[in-house]
Amino acid sequence: MKVKKALITAAGKGQHNLPLQTLIDRDGVEKAVLRIIVEEALCGGVEEIGVLVPPGDVSPYEEVVKEHIGHLTFIHQNEPLGYGHAIYCARDFVGSDPFLHMVGDHLHIGRKSKSCAEELIGIAESEKAAVSAVQATRENLLPYFGTIGGKRVQGKKNLYEVDRVIEKPTPTQAEQDLIIPGMRAGYYLCFFGMHVLTSTVIDILGRLLSEASDPKTVTLSDALNELAQQEKLLALGKSDQRYDIGVKYGLLTAQIALAMSGKDRDEVLTKLLELLYIREQNAGRHEE
Amino acid sequence: MKVKKALITAAGKGQHNLPLQTLIDRDGVEKAVLRIIVEEALCGGVEEIGVLVPPGDVSPYEEVVKEHIGHLTFIHQNEPLGYGHAIYCARDFVGSDPFLHMVGDHLHIGRKSKSCAEELIGIAESEKAAVSAVQATRENLLPYFGTIGGKRVQGKKNLYEVDRVIEKPTPTQAEQDLIIPGMRAGYYLCFFGMHVLTSTVIDILGRLLSEASDPKTVTLSDALNELAQQEKLLALGKSDQRYDIGVKYGLLTAQIALAMSGKDRDEVLTKLLELLYIREQNAGRHEE
Repeated sequence: MKVKKALITAAGKGQHNLPLQTLIDRDGVEKAVLRIIVEEALCGGVEEIGVLVPPGDVSPYEEVVKEHIGHLTFIHQNEPLGYGHAIYCARDFVGSDPFLHMVGDHLHIGRKSKSCAEELIGIAESEKAAVSAVQATRENLLPYFGTIGGKRVQGKKNLYEVDRVIEKPTPTQAEQDLIIPGMRAGYYLCFFGMHVLTSTVIDILGRLLSEASDPKTVTLSDALNELAQQEKLLALGKSDQRYDIGVKYGLLTAQIALAMSGKDRDEVLTKLLELLYIREQNAGRHEE
Repeated sequence: MKVKKALITAAGKGQHNLPLQTLIDRDGVEKAVLRIIVEEALCGGVEEIGVLVPPGDVSPYEEVVKEHIGHLTFIHQNEPLGYGHAIYCARDFVGSDPFLHMVGDHLHIGRKSKSCAEELIGIAESEKAAVSAVQATRENLLPYFGTIGGKRVQGKKNLYEVDRVIEKPTPTQAEQDLIIPGMRAGYYLCFFGMHVLTSTVIDILGRLLSEASDPKTVTLSDALNELAQQEKLLALGKSDQRYDIGVKYGLLTAQIALAMSGKDRDEVLTKLLELLYIREQNAGRHEE
């Protein structure tokens, strides 16, 4: 198995402008969020990238990734029918190939030289299986994430074989079906926003969507739960930081995290301190 | 004189996406930069706002200011012929009316309940004259700004009558022509990125552009220098913070400044500290 395709979803409600927001990457270069994600895929060895966008003009997206435009295909999700449907809109792009899947509203900031995408692709290729990045997550955060159950793969560090996936499980569901032997009590493995998937997922999504009374209710977790029954689905535990830039102050947080782990660390720390100093100073005096 | 129009310039090279960048305003609401600037104009009593944009689709701009779309007119600068030319492109919009002028890559964060726009409009209306916001600026920063010379208006706090404007003066020019009696040594009054102008400025720009061998060399400062000879031009000294969001880490700095002066101050301070703590913690340990 060689992973040469990637699919980035950026079509969600209220996400219109998120891929166009500008951050300064760890290399000190100003880039749109979409370009940062595209570059992570390209560095992992991907050659063709499908970007799922809402209906409308794609030129603002093209503009911010013009350096890599030859690798990109924009795919429209013409109706806002949910996340499962969005991925299914890419069926022609995916064909029968495996693909890296990244979400357009998350940034992953690792501490290793190898990116999360590169690591996932390496495992998928050597294990010849789909693999999802997961992170140990406290029970109180289960309402936000797809969560896996399964067991550790013997002799492989941080690797799990998935037997169950539940989208936003209740604590009771989690306790019954998703406990991983050896995990700290009250912690579960939740999706981290990056996967390598096989095209079987697209077939499963197609069937789930045709059977569902409301396509919006079909999630990727539903499809991955079925995938785990049909094929081997692995999960790689990551302890990197993941930043959801779609939440309030998400961009600010991601920007500071990028800067703190990159070449401009000292410059930004100095700027933060100066700024806090100026505000405190101003708060304490009256206008001239 | 009643100021009912505003002109926002957002057509500069490399500024395409700047007005679309998202920040969280002091009221805790997520807004595009363009919307924050538009709302400052509207709060100052302006009713019609012209937004100068580069050629191309305006729908991304419309999308981020849809709450105020009835007040907006988008004006294209079809060729990148500089800042003076950009303002001249708005001649039909301005007509013979006075107008508030704001630049699309600066945010002003004041400490008073009255915004900078509201204060400038108040002075322009009561003094029946054009007025530029200025800030005391150290000599070493002169290469970045238009700078004024003039004298204090008796009995008015922080108000100056302008007799000279030079764009990016050399220290020698500044020392000869731009010293303001009573200013701290080595400090000059530089533009702050906001003015109330009369339509005379448009006439002057038209003449300067027709006379210039290269229109790109015609600056607003050139036109204001002539305006000061023809009409009364005032300057209001501001000690607010101004953030140039077009520079590296400008958005980050502006976001933190907005948050520090707004309702989410404590939330953001806590987030900053958590983030610095996580990064330090991670820097000190190895991946599991």
